Amino acid sequence: MTQPIVLDWEKISSLLDQIEIHEPMKQAFIEYSNGNAEIPPVGELLFEEPPGEVHIKYGYIKGGSFYVIKIASGFSGNNQLGVKPGQGMMLLFDIVTGIPKAILIDQANLTDLRTGIAGAMASVLLANEGTESVAIIGNGVQARYQARCLMELMPIKIINVWGRDKEKSKKLQQDLSDLDAELLIHEDLADVIKQNKLIITTTSSKKAIIQSNWVQPGTHITAVGSDTPEKCELDSDILSRADIVVADSIPQNQLRGEIHQALKKGTIQPNELVEIGQIFEGSAQGRNHFDQITVADLTGVAVQDLVIAEAVYKVAIS
Amino acid sequence: MTQPIVLDWEKISSLLDQIEIHEPMKQAFIEYSNGNAEIPPVGELLFEEPPGEVHIKYGYIKGGSFYVIKIASGFSGNNQLGVKPGQGMMLLFDIVTGIPKAILIDQANLTDLRTGIAGAMASVLLANEGTESVAIIGNGVQARYQARCLMELMPIKIINVWGRDKEKSKKLQQDLSDLDAELLIHEDLADVIKQNKLIITTTSSKKAIIQSNWVQPGTHITAVGSDTPEKCELDSDILSRADIVVADSIPQNQLRGEIHQALKKGTIQPNELVEIGQIFEGSAQGRNHFDQITVADLTGVAVQDLVIAEAVYKVAIS
Repeated sequence: MTQPIVLDWEKISSLLDQIEIHEPMKQAFIEYSNGNAEIPPVGELLFEEPPGEVHIKYGYIKGGSFYVIKIASGFSGNNQLGVKPGQGMMLLFDIVTGIPKAILIDQANLTDLRTGIAGAMASVLLANEGTESVAIIGNGVQARYQARCLMELMPIKIINVWGRDKEKSKKLQQDLSDLDAELLIHEDLADVIKQNKLIITTTSSKKAIIQSNWVQPGTHITAVGSDTPEKCELDSDILSRADIVVADSIPQNQLRGEIHQALKKGTIQPNELVEIGQIFEGSAQGRNHFDQITVADLTGVAVQDLVIAEAVYKVAIS
Repeated sequence: MTQPIVLDWEKISSLLDQIEIHEPMKQAFIEYSNGNAEIPPVGELLFEEPPGEVHIKYGYIKGGSFYVIKIASGFSGNNQLGVKPGQGMMLLFDIVTGIPKAILIDQANLTDLRTGIAGAMASVLLANEGTESVAIIGNGVQARYQARCLMELMPIKIINVWGRDKEKSKKLQQDLSDLDAELLIHEDLADVIKQNKLIITTTSSKKAIIQSNWVQPGTHITAVGSDTPEKCELDSDILSRADIVVADSIPQNQLRGEIHQALKKGTIQPNELVEIGQIFEGSAQGRNHFDQITVADLTGVAVQDLVIAEAVYKVAIS
């Protein structure tokens, strides 16, 4: 029997400039929202000492070639050991026989990348046209991915960054110095929110850090930081004020993220939600007025993992 | 970063005669029953066309070195394609950092083996001493594993086999001809049950095939066939008649297998259940009379996958 291909991150990253992912990702969201994907609830394994968490996302699109299992872990103590906190792999299996086809030992980087790509796609989809500045809240790995992925899709001239630790923001500024945009570091979160109409939140906060009265008409917020039942970056009043609240997966967002928090508080109702796949397809309305407030809460769906793993696999065997 | 070792089934199977698994498996069941293992509910992915199912079992023992994720699939159409129906892999990750350490592409064989080992351990634990004949119900892969694993632990002289398809039973007879026991093929299921006091059920039946009035005093039944919410081999009255009903995992057996079926019908109550780890440890009573009827319903717990994957890994790197 043919063995699966096994690729480490060095090899995977060397293939990434050959993959085209935006259109397949859009189609995958559409298939998902049309009920053509089988995506069970996220599997979760928690560790206390040392603290860590593992997320297992898995599923398939009907009529596709593969099913995917994605394992992504975060062990925060790894930094002290000189090890990357994110680890894991994406696995592709033949959908007809179950035979393993690809083992992508991506150290959770493909998860970060597909989150960056989906975030940028949501930002383009829902921000006002002509937007030339963005506020990125947080200065970690995902802040970098959101900036890079957004720059591929929008003519951004100014990237405003806010993070609790200014030194980390300076490091981010250096890391993104190759981008063709001015990167400004800010210390007043309220001011940054008030002065930007495209906001991307990437922190792992467990309480709301962005207040509703800071958010101006015409703002779009892409929230990618909160992907668990506990995490939360936005005052839930922002979601009730929003004209459009977009989930990547309504069932999953009911259990995780900003939407979960707002539903729990009763500030929004499930029937007010739309999925990003519905807007991509045109079966739900996206922004139709300059002054609307829109929120896209992305918790990460296994169809995204399927799309990126399949794209890497196809390039690898070509 | 050191890459994980990747072993295919050919390599894994060449290592198996070097592993000692019974004592670690016993200890793992004890740890599990003592609450020292973190085992989330089984993940399940189902396929309609062609039909297939994937089970994802995962977890860790506190204080151990690894967490495990086990993927085992069954696609029944594979036979027609000349492909083994069972596929999958076992993955070991460092419990401190999440770094992947071992990828065992076992085609679900390690799952079959650890099921065979656990079944044999339950049979030895609960059958009357001096038992020299066994009835194995079913003639598939797991019937073979149960026979081989039992022969390592008990002085069995006669293996009685019953299966719907006599030709398959003859094939099993050939496959097990190296065993130091007489293998007899039977056609009357009632007779086989009545005449044996150690019964191992290995079918994938979805309705009870073994009636309660066939089961004689002093009988022990190890039921390994039914591992899903739908599957069922035993008339639920057998469980209510039994003096001891043993689960491998009470939470999991409440959702899957014979115990799940009997609880649903109300023929047994949750407080009547004990776990095999409790009997191994001595904190619950095992058989204490020759005429008792005992049932061990094994649905397969991730600690078993952890033990066997760890054993293979240790031999592989030694």
